[in-house]
Amino acid sequence: MENRLKPMDAEQLREYGHKMVDFIADYYKTIENFPVLSQVEPGYLRNLLPDSAPNQPDSFQHVLDDIQAKILPGVTHWQSPNYFAYYPSNSSVAGFVGEMLSAGLNIVGFSWITSPAATELEIIVLDWLAKMLKLPEDFLSAGQGGGVIQGTASEAVLVVLLAARDKVLRRVGKDALEKLVVYASDQMHSSLQKACQIAGIHPENCRLLKATSSTNYALSPEFLSETISQDLTIGLIPFFLCATVGTTSSTAVDPLLSLGKIAKSNGMWFHVDAAYAGSACVCPEFRHYIDGVEEADSFNMNAHKWFLTNFDCSALWVKDRSALVQALSTNPEYLKNKKMADSKPAKTWFLMYSRKLAKLVVACQLEK
Amino acid sequence: MENRLKPMDAEQLREYGHKMVDFIADYYKTIENFPVLSQVEPGYLRNLLPDSAPNQPDSFQHVLDDIQAKILPGVTHWQSPNYFAYYPSNSSVAGFVGEMLSAGLNIVGFSWITSPAATELEIIVLDWLAKMLKLPEDFLSAGQGGGVIQGTASEAVLVVLLAARDKVLRRVGKDALEKLVVYASDQMHSSLQKACQIAGIHPENCRLLKATSSTNYALSPEFLSETISQDLTIGLIPFFLCATVGTTSSTAVDPLLSLGKIAKSNGMWFHVDAAYAGSACVCPEFRHYIDGVEEADSFNMNAHKWFLTNFDCSALWVKDRSALVQALSTNPEYLKNKKMADSKPAKTWFLMYSRKLAKLVVACQLEK
Repeated sequence: MENRLKPMDAEQLREYGHKMVDFIADYYKTIENFPVLSQVEPGYLRNLLPDSAPNQPDSFQHVLDDIQAKILPGVTHWQSPNYFAYYPSNSSVAGFVGEMLSAGLNIVGFSWITSPAATELEIIVLDWLAKMLKLPEDFLSAGQGGGVIQGTASEAVLVVLLAARDKVLRRVGKDALEKLVVYASDQMHSSLQKACQIAGIHPENCRLLKATSSTNYALSPEFLSETISQDLTIGLIPFFLCATVGTTSSTAVDPLLSLGKIAKSNGMWFHVDAAYAGSACVCPEFRHYIDGVEEADSFNMNAHKWFLTNFDCSALWVKDRSALVQALSTNPEYLKNKKMADSKPAKTWFLMYSRKLAKLVVACQLEK
Repeated sequence: MENRLKPMDAEQLREYGHKMVDFIADYYKTIENFPVLSQVEPGYLRNLLPDSAPNQPDSFQHVLDDIQAKILPGVTHWQSPNYFAYYPSNSSVAGFVGEMLSAGLNIVGFSWITSPAATELEIIVLDWLAKMLKLPEDFLSAGQGGGVIQGTASEAVLVVLLAARDKVLRRVGKDALEKLVVYASDQMHSSLQKACQIAGIHPENCRLLKATSSTNYALSPEFLSETISQDLTIGLIPFFLCATVGTTSSTAVDPLLSLGKIAKSNGMWFHVDAAYAGSACVCPEFRHYIDGVEEADSFNMNAHKWFLTNFDCSALWVKDRSALVQALSTNPEYLKNKKMADSKPAKTWFLMYSRKLAKLVVACQLEK
């Protein structure tokens, strides 16, 4: 019994956990000393590690030494105060201890009963966040809508595209897939094209409309209307419009209100991708950038950009959660349970795994 | 300057990090005292939390008290020694400190240059793991194949289904989507059906063939052959076969060798889902359960089941990584970089985000 494997020994966890906290705190204390961009050449690590997994375990101190000597030189320091690539540094003490708690409890939230707190905290905190952003009430969980955490904005646009695709195909027949058309400006993040590839939308039906300096690189409603009219004339089916609030290249903001009205009058799903700039809209002085979001069917912003939350935590709201459920549900015996049947639909629609227990709430509540 | 926001203060990280380590270590020390299944009723948390996000920050101790009083009662304790639902408890000290390190560095590995160590460590450790499983050399990164970490086996089957779909459509023309047929036993996890829904495979072309006690609930090669013949007769296009090693309901094992030969003779992609039982095959006495994997195009197992690695960490290997790249690539300006152009394709094909820096290597190397 003395030699049995005890992979999760509480006292060893305490000892190594404390050492790792100090390792990471020391890293942040000296983070400005690293070159921001990793200086290694492709293939550097192959020369530093053995060809196959070691047969013998190693001491914890040696593992930390290895990380220092072999891993850190290959890290591009996203959290450095001198880092200005891609998106903002987002680490915070609150985010980090939330990650620790989430990893420590290590539950899998694929259904309410697998840990009710995971589903319920997610619903509640996304309601909080929706209120902070002054999203219309339709996006709150009390009605037919609600919020759900995705990994990235790429995942968010994929799941709403699937919901929209299946909704229109239920109406026009599933053989019409090749006629479906998607619209966005050419400033839209490449994730929309990837989502179209995955969903089987024909690449030539993914219209990335040219946006120019004349509109500050925003999508022109007139240009959109014209293109939709032409597509209708040749028998295509416009079904999905994606606007961006804060484009990747220039932080351009598409005019949500007029775009949304065009989408509505054509029976299209209107998604607003505010992955980058959306978080700023909790400030009253910036809220006007999402005026018109009341016309949207879905809205997304990344808490892992300006909200000091660890990657990955992308918040998605929809007005009609049944469309998501229909597109992404399966109903096998081993995922059913009595509580689920008893509870309101609001409690059971989170069909993607929920990995973020307590992260957001800790990030929101913690003393600065 | 004294009052400026310092969300990532190294000394505050140290203080709160140590407290969180103790909180989690104490949780594991007393984990046997909790009822394994959460005893709360649906909606319990709504009554315990405010309607909107608090305006004032709270002390760290109060946050911990809240977690204890309001969150833990809503947790189903997956890591309890008395937990026997869904899949095995998988927490380990190594897995936990790996999660801490990953959260502490908080890098995003969407391209080699964003942190070379993320891409390279993933490739190397998945080569190690492939060797431990004695996978054929075709699955190693030195040739045309290699491994990549996915979140779950559901994601793994989705990405290979997309790769297989696009590969066959390049051959037969993209309008043939409605003719594509997928095969598996009716014991297969529901993730295959969800992947088919997402990929636009017509539901009636997702053949879940009945497996009975006469084959110990394994898929019958004869039944498969007959069904494929019938489908070919009526002009359909069989393109994807998924075998399971360790089914969800009964741990049944499909006969990989004979199934693989059928797939090959019909030009189909053959995926082996060993999510549950695959990890056992590192033991010589169990390796025979994946005999025949040499016929597979892709193979998947979940490190977050028996490998003491935190959820989520699912290892996927493919023989032809170009099929994955073609199905899931976009090539926008902001993801290009010179090193990427210079480096071998092996270094640049990880198009899904790599979130798991150092988790696996720590789990493999740490002293038990």
